[in-house]
Amino acid sequence: MAKKYVYNFEEAYGLGKELLGGKGAGLAEMIHIGIPIPPGFTVSTEACTLYYESKKQIPDYVVKEIYDAVHRVEKQTGKNFGGKSNPLLVSVRSGARASMPGMMDTVLNLGLNDETVEILAKETNNPRFAYDSYRRFILMYTNIAKGHPRTEMDKMLEDLKEERGYKLDTEITADELKGLVDKFKAYYKKVFKEDFPKNPYEQLIESVTAVFRSWDNPRANVYRKMHNIPYEWGTAVNVQAMVFGNKNEESGTGVAFSRSPSTGEKTIFAEYLPNAQGEDVVAGTRTPLHIEELDARHPEVYKEFVETIERMEKHYHDMQDMEFTVEDGKLYFLQTRSGKRTAQAALKIASDLVDEGIIDIDEAVLRVDPNILDTLLHPSFDEKELAKLTPLSVGLPASPGAATGKLAFTAQEAKERFEAGEKVILIRVETSPEDIEGMVAAEGILTMRGGMTSHAAVVARGMGKTCVAGAGGIVIDEVNKTARVGNKVYTDQDVFSLNGTTGSVYAGEIKMQAAQMTGYFGRIMAWADERRRLEVHANAETERDVQTAKDFGAEGIGLARTEHMFFDKDRIFYMRKMILEDTVEGREEALASLLPYQRDDFYKIFKIMGKLNVTVRLLDPPLHEFLPQEEDQIVSLAKALNKTPADIKTRISDLHEFNPMMGHRGLRLAVSYPEIAKMQTTAIIEAAILAQKDLGEKITPEIMIPLTLDSKEFLYVKNIITSTADEIIKEANVKLDYLVGTMIEIPRATLLADEIAKDASFFSFGTNDLTQMTYGFSRDDAAKFLNDYYDKKIFAQDPFQTIDQKGVGELVKIAVERGREANPDLHLGVCGEHGGDPLSVEFFHNVGLDYVSCSPFRVPVARLAAAQAAIKEKLAKK
Amino acid sequence: MAKKYVYNFEEAYGLGKELLGGKGAGLAEMIHIGIPIPPGFTVSTEACTLYYESKKQIPDYVVKEIYDAVHRVEKQTGKNFGGKSNPLLVSVRSGARASMPGMMDTVLNLGLNDETVEILAKETNNPRFAYDSYRRFILMYTNIAKGHPRTEMDKMLEDLKEERGYKLDTEITADELKGLVDKFKAYYKKVFKEDFPKNPYEQLIESVTAVFRSWDNPRANVYRKMHNIPYEWGTAVNVQAMVFGNKNEESGTGVAFSRSPSTGEKTIFAEYLPNAQGEDVVAGTRTPLHIEELDARHPEVYKEFVETIERMEKHYHDMQDMEFTVEDGKLYFLQTRSGKRTAQAALKIASDLVDEGIIDIDEAVLRVDPNILDTLLHPSFDEKELAKLTPLSVGLPASPGAATGKLAFTAQEAKERFEAGEKVILIRVETSPEDIEGMVAAEGILTMRGGMTSHAAVVARGMGKTCVAGAGGIVIDEVNKTARVGNKVYTDQDVFSLNGTTGSVYAGEIKMQAAQMTGYFGRIMAWADERRRLEVHANAETERDVQTAKDFGAEGIGLARTEHMFFDKDRIFYMRKMILEDTVEGREEALASLLPYQRDDFYKIFKIMGKLNVTVRLLDPPLHEFLPQEEDQIVSLAKALNKTPADIKTRISDLHEFNPMMGHRGLRLAVSYPEIAKMQTTAIIEAAILAQKDLGEKITPEIMIPLTLDSKEFLYVKNIITSTADEIIKEANVKLDYLVGTMIEIPRATLLADEIAKDASFFSFGTNDLTQMTYGFSRDDAAKFLNDYYDKKIFAQDPFQTIDQKGVGELVKIAVERGREANPDLHLGVCGEHGGDPLSVEFFHNVGLDYVSCSPFRVPVARLAAAQAAIKEKLAKK
Repeated sequence: MAKKYVYNFEEAYGLGKELLGGKGAGLAEMIHIGIPIPPGFTVSTEACTLYYESKKQIPDYVVKEIYDAVHRVEKQTGKNFGGKSNPLLVSVRSGARASMPGMMDTVLNLGLNDETVEILAKETNNPRFAYDSYRRFILMYTNIAKGHPRTEMDKMLEDLKEERGYKLDTEITADELKGLVDKFKAYYKKVFKEDFPKNPYEQLIESVTAVFRSWDNPRANVYRKMHNIPYEWGTAVNVQAMVFGNKNEESGTGVAFSRSPSTGEKTIFAEYLPNAQGEDVVAGTRTPLHIEELDARHPEVYKEFVETIERMEKHYHDMQDMEFTVEDGKLYFLQTRSGKRTAQAALKIASDLVDEGIIDIDEAVLRVDPNILDTLLHPSFDEKELAKLTPLSVGLPASPGAATGKLAFTAQEAKERFEAGEKVILIRVETSPEDIEGMVAAEGILTMRGGMTSHAAVVARGMGKTCVAGAGGIVIDEVNKTARVGNKVYTDQDVFSLNGTTGSVYAGEIKMQAAQMTGYFGRIMAWADERRRLEVHANAETERDVQTAKDFGAEGIGLARTEHMFFDKDRIFYMRKMILEDTVEGREEALASLLPYQRDDFYKIFKIMGKLNVTVRLLDPPLHEFLPQEEDQIVSLAKALNKTPADIKTRISDLHEFNPMMGHRGLRLAVSYPEIAKMQTTAIIEAAILAQKDLGEKITPEIMIPLTLDSKEFLYVKNIITSTADEIIKEANVKLDYLVGTMIEIPRATLLADEIAKDASFFSFGTNDLTQMTYGFSRDDAAKFLNDYYDKKIFAQDPFQTIDQKGVGELVKIAVERGREANPDLHLGVCGEHGGDPLSVEFFHNVGLDYVSCSPFRVPVARLAAAQAAIKEKLAKK
Repeated sequence: MAKKYVYNFEEAYGLGKELLGGKGAGLAEMIHIGIPIPPGFTVSTEACTLYYESKKQIPDYVVKEIYDAVHRVEKQTGKNFGGKSNPLLVSVRSGARASMPGMMDTVLNLGLNDETVEILAKETNNPRFAYDSYRRFILMYTNIAKGHPRTEMDKMLEDLKEERGYKLDTEITADELKGLVDKFKAYYKKVFKEDFPKNPYEQLIESVTAVFRSWDNPRANVYRKMHNIPYEWGTAVNVQAMVFGNKNEESGTGVAFSRSPSTGEKTIFAEYLPNAQGEDVVAGTRTPLHIEELDARHPEVYKEFVETIERMEKHYHDMQDMEFTVEDGKLYFLQTRSGKRTAQAALKIASDLVDEGIIDIDEAVLRVDPNILDTLLHPSFDEKELAKLTPLSVGLPASPGAATGKLAFTAQEAKERFEAGEKVILIRVETSPEDIEGMVAAEGILTMRGGMTSHAAVVARGMGKTCVAGAGGIVIDEVNKTARVGNKVYTDQDVFSLNGTTGSVYAGEIKMQAAQMTGYFGRIMAWADERRRLEVHANAETERDVQTAKDFGAEGIGLARTEHMFFDKDRIFYMRKMILEDTVEGREEALASLLPYQRDDFYKIFKIMGKLNVTVRLLDPPLHEFLPQEEDQIVSLAKALNKTPADIKTRISDLHEFNPMMGHRGLRLAVSYPEIAKMQTTAIIEAAILAQKDLGEKITPEIMIPLTLDSKEFLYVKNIITSTADEIIKEANVKLDYLVGTMIEIPRATLLADEIAKDASFFSFGTNDLTQMTYGFSRDDAAKFLNDYYDKKIFAQDPFQTIDQKGVGELVKIAVERGREANPDLHLGVCGEHGGDPLSVEFFHNVGLDYVSCSPFRVPVARLAAAQAAIKEKLAKK
């Protein structure tokens, strides 16, 4: 038997997308399960290869196969390709194995010529529609199949509208469209020195050839090279009959969901518009009818409609979102896909599908996108209210939630107005650690600069506070306390509303709805918890956040940062005093004043978490972050310390760093000033002893050293900790176990993980910093150029949001292997932002970590993602 | 036969330092080749292990072995341990396999007690010497062997001096010392509740035990853990007879070099001081005699002396630096080691030793420390002048050489005064790229801040210009143009002299001597070139530097940086204009003005290097480095560009980066502004076409993309380059090959080297940045805390000076393996500062790079280091 190159959809099922391309394989599957779709066929990828092997010609025997396939479609539709009546029109689309921009996309309405257009006009009784279709076809054919710029043709249309004084395309009459068609054809002749092809078969073969040709065009080649798509794959071509819902009153079009996308309720949710095209539904120019109208007009069609939808749900095991068309009383589905849904609906549908026996629990857990859980945990704006509004500006959705308040331009102001009972939004060009108190006081935070992992974003997510970052459309003048959008200027008396889930910023107040956690949430999460292997801890240190984390199911505190603790008004003075002292004794004295505060901080955490794991990280940021920057603060600090402002400025200038991210911070501070680590160790151990006594439960604090890059360095600081801790425990005459481990966040530490692991109880990967160092860019500065990387398709995603598996991920893998090899008891986790990102959580599961730690509001997300990772692993092993 | 634990030196040869420790093995070797050393014995490391296995007791049978060994020494010396006449005194020293701080060091004069001290006093006719030795012994025994603090005893000595009004220890009389000995003994008794041990055997066993005990003390344990020295190794103990050159006129002491350490001439260079101790020679209180004096006094001893020195040279195959003592007409060598020598001497000695048949050429090449070549290439201060002076301050030896000039406090001033014919030293708190012209104009550069790899240091080394960096002792006031050292204030009329080889800064002018390259230099370098596998290229871009590099033997330019080229007065304006333009067109216009300059820059390089490889790196630093910072400059720039100063300040503020090292720079600029890469490519290709025509030689320029971290990113920028270059070549209708490659300086790029290598012709490891990212610290900021790391023995060396093999080196290895696997033709090199560091060059050789590129003045260093690496590899294979 001769080799076959063309497959009608019904004979193609199971042949795979290597042969049919992605789109062709999908159409074959729909036919296979009995979905009524417009008939058609796929010209295979092998035909494409053959085309290139045949000096860029489609061999005659393949042309013949295409013609035969067209004839079968004629039979199936009862229409005639280029025929005198009931003309068959088709679409031609490329369809490679993987979606590929740069290739020819779509030519619609192929089969039209001066004769068939007239027949179509008569049979649909709609000459305007017929000629509109025709002029679109000529343009698409010229531009897409023949590769000629559309500029001139577009101009002809614009000229016509201007001449007639029309604003919309729809105002153009059938006759005018007919005239336009003539002009288009004349232009085509001028350009190509030949008439626009009349013969539909010629049109078709030329279009298929155009698709094949486009596989080799420069844009496609660059794309392929960048995405490692082999040139040999080739592309398939799909040819499918066009159907028209606007043919007559026996026709129509609509959209349908197999269940309610907003509540998840099990009822078909659909709309139908008789004698109309898909565009009419979308454009909203006519109001669609309730789907019962279809039942009333065509009970048989309605019955088939309902049955087909049920069949699709069962086949795809999920709620479907479909487009359908009725042509002359015959039902066609044009598209089906998993339907978008609200978080509530997603949980209910997954849960119901289990009860209905359509999917098992594993599949239900896999079905819920962990990211949507976020919206359930934060209050949100009323959707209906929101739909009516236009945002002032759209920034980055840095921390989800909804917040409304008057603008406060400084942290100090935010704090004061909050204390006076006002609701405020803290609006800053960017935030710094000095703004912490203002951030705590504000309903939400809005910044003009900074990315998803800027200071504002990270801290806000940690607090579970709404934040929109990098809203560049808003020009903030911090000195004059104004925010300008275009010509409009807003002051501290204006109200803004922030949607942290979308990044939208609105002027004025918007009605809120409270967080909704239905029983389905609990049911799905319980299933998830039974399935996951990864522990989920939280990054938290304030009483409120620690409690929230525990409420959301955190099994420990994986990262309690100690730096925020020093910004409180009473404490910052001693912190500054410590930094400004010249001697060890001076620093020790200032640290002694901080000790009771720190001990109290840790006691509160231990008290909430009890026997659950609490990991405290020693001081991390460079010391200059704690010094004041404004003149009046410097002056008053100088006075309080009996120094001159010049002394303080000298110290500030001494501490200045060119690249603070790569400066004197982390355990480097402990190496230079062991007394700081001693004080913090003392606070942790004393607090643990106290809490253990008060709770009557065994508490095992974990002390984490940040920024380690060398085993000797680690050991030096570990010795400070253990000698301090052991002495306190001995003096207190109690039994207390504690562990000392380290962050792994410097590339060198991953490579030397074996050496470091010998003396460490645990590793916690700080993937924020590890990503910065591995990429060599700082998250704050990268925001400025990352958009160019996305625009130019160099990066597909933000490496600070989802872990880069190839680079950063490999370093994590190396460290896990070497660390475990050297110390099989090593407890391994991650405490970077990635710990709350589902894709990253899956990677961490696969790489064999023991736990992830994330901000409190991401805990449920991580629990679900961890379960999905475990299920996927189980399924892959089957 | 019973196991042996104690070895007299003469029976220990060849038993290895595992058993004898390093010191013991060395003494055995000296005895073996017939060097007369004071006799003695080694208590082995196995005895140490046995001690710990025997509940910290030295078993009786080992004690007996020690006694037996002492008796043998008595026989050899004819002295008596604790005897009534001619008393034998010994030293006790620890000697582990590897040198270990934290352990017991040395006890001298052991064997003294109230009786033997008197005998010694009589026999030497020097009671002062006898009692001085005794009081020292009691102190060392108490402090070192018994581990009791020396504070009280030191105080007794101080009290005595104060009481008598003495300034120096030497003023104390014999009787007073005797009194002190009594006080010491009384103190000892008070502390230990027992008499100071009289029995020399008891003193000895107690001291040996103390050495063993010190193996397990906390400091030693920490050190061992940090340096991975196994606890099981144990330490040995060396017991050696003391000899005294101050015994009488038949005794004496001296130092000797087997050849001249300053010229390398083959004559013994020695001094002798009769009736004296080593200390007397060092202290310079008495003038030593020429060595002929020894011949005159003791012709037999002198003959033995000369013969022994010759024997040692032949044995150690090198010029020796020795200490010797004559006691009662008998010669002893106390120490021998390879002698320190000047660069000139090193070359002559290595060369002569080959001619004398003592070493082969390989060994001669290995024998010259590459680092000393530096001093041959730069003019230097007259050594005699220098010896008389005290430096004002000592900073880091950032770039070798000597420079003298008046102080210039700004780059502008330096340039103007240079042009007016003055010699100036540019003195700055720290330098920035804006200072380039001033650096070029200055004789030398002096900065208050910054490390060995600060901007000033790197640029100065690149220029071969003397630089002392981080001279913190000098307080520079840039506004008032003064430099203060202590209370002394220097102005722009004062002259400073900088020694870039030592980091010393002097007030006033110092006489200079020109660079001296004798014929030995050429001979050794020719040997080296025949032996090395690595090519040596240079980092250079100015005409002068490129020429220097070629003169010093560079086989290509491995890194021509283009950023310095934009700081010239005529160019910086267009550069700033380009940065301040908002549109692509505006930028292109400004770039068009820069093109002729750039083309000319590259033409000059190609002209000098001809067919030798030239690698040009595209623009690397962030754009803000090019913008002015001072108000008046901003104002005049605004005027010239028809903008307001506020516009310019806004742009400066927009371009501000938190961490410029990790910001918008390198190829990230090319991604955002392809037009910059286009202009630079145009300049390179046009210059190459021109130079190829003018020289009639094939030129193959290499274009290097900086900061790559991803294959798509690389490909995007490579496409800009190739499309630009190919068009120019096509239009010019010439044949020109060019290569496109990349720096590998971001950790991620090393991991993804396989993907990147597919499209790259070469990799050049930028180990400066790679070290920064791998360690997570910036070289500028790290200077502040690295001293703490050295002090605390966490780091042994500066990772910016010598490559860190475990971390950074592993990434290089990974990239080499993956890169070559994916692209076997890949040309691999390094262009970081490490390319000129001998230890690093050896690593690069071993890891399989094809070339190293370093600053011009390091080229000879790298050539020699590369040869040494090749020779070592060859020897290791034997």
